[in-house]
Amino acid sequence: MAQKEVYFEDVKVGYEIPEVVKDPITETQLVMYAGASGDFNPIHTVHAFGEKAGFGGVIGHGMLSMAFAGQIMTDWVGAKALKKLSVQFRAVTKPKDVITIKGTVSKKYTEDGKNFVDCDLIAIKQNGDKIIVGQATAVLPAK
Amino acid sequence: MAQKEVYFEDVKVGYEIPEVVKDPITETQLVMYAGASGDFNPIHTVHAFGEKAGFGGVIGHGMLSMAFAGQIMTDWVGAKALKKLSVQFRAVTKPKDVITIKGTVSKKYTEDGKNFVDCDLIAIKQNGDKIIVGQATAVLPAK
Repeated sequence: MAQKEVYFEDVKVGYEIPEVVKDPITETQLVMYAGASGDFNPIHTVHAFGEKAGFGGVIGHGMLSMAFAGQIMTDWVGAKALKKLSVQFRAVTKPKDVITIKGTVSKKYTEDGKNFVDCDLIAIKQNGDKIIVGQATAVLPAK
Repeated sequence: MAQKEVYFEDVKVGYEIPEVVKDPITETQLVMYAGASGDFNPIHTVHAFGEKAGFGGVIGHGMLSMAFAGQIMTDWVGAKALKKLSVQFRAVTKPKDVITIKGTVSKKYTEDGKNFVDCDLIAIKQNGDKIIVGQATAVLPAK
């Protein structure tokens, strides 16, 4: 893991996790995501399907939006520390959308000798529309 | 969406959602996933990193495991119907792992005129180890 270790003692409730700004979504990215995930629903890759469904073209995979939401956690504390991720899907993404993920620590607690932080997450589009609202739980090391 | 419409009236608590068996995970798939998601942590793509971390090689992205878990829902009722997905990460995946996702309807209810089904999900490896335990909520049409 490349990131700096984040210690439980140094994280306060209300802490704003470093935000993640993704590169604009591209149609090629959705093709790559289809291949990587095995989710070949043509609404994500075939323009005519997206048009027929009323989106004016392809839309992004919801699971990709979810992965973006999770990335704020894995970039911050590492994948190994992330124990739980929960998302509510609010809106679809489209090519050229720029997704920003923000997060705040909502709770700290120790259980069975492990140090947990709960976080509230939000992923928004360039126009401010929420695409994902979520929660995450991570276990952090103590000093 | 290619799948057949699933109606609220036809789904009973305890219903077993058609299981999804993924193709064996490949190292190339993880490279594709890195490119698609933008998560380039080398533990997923560079053998030496995985060895150094004690895994004997690369490991799969947790978000890919999560996407697999979600696929049982999107294959069953479509992405549009899936409103909420929550997962707990239990174990890592490795290349050649064959992941099977199973799901059961745990609750049915109507709120604000919408018909919800809650489902319990589990993703297991070929040896039975749990990699993901999760919950999902979908909104289904009425007849």
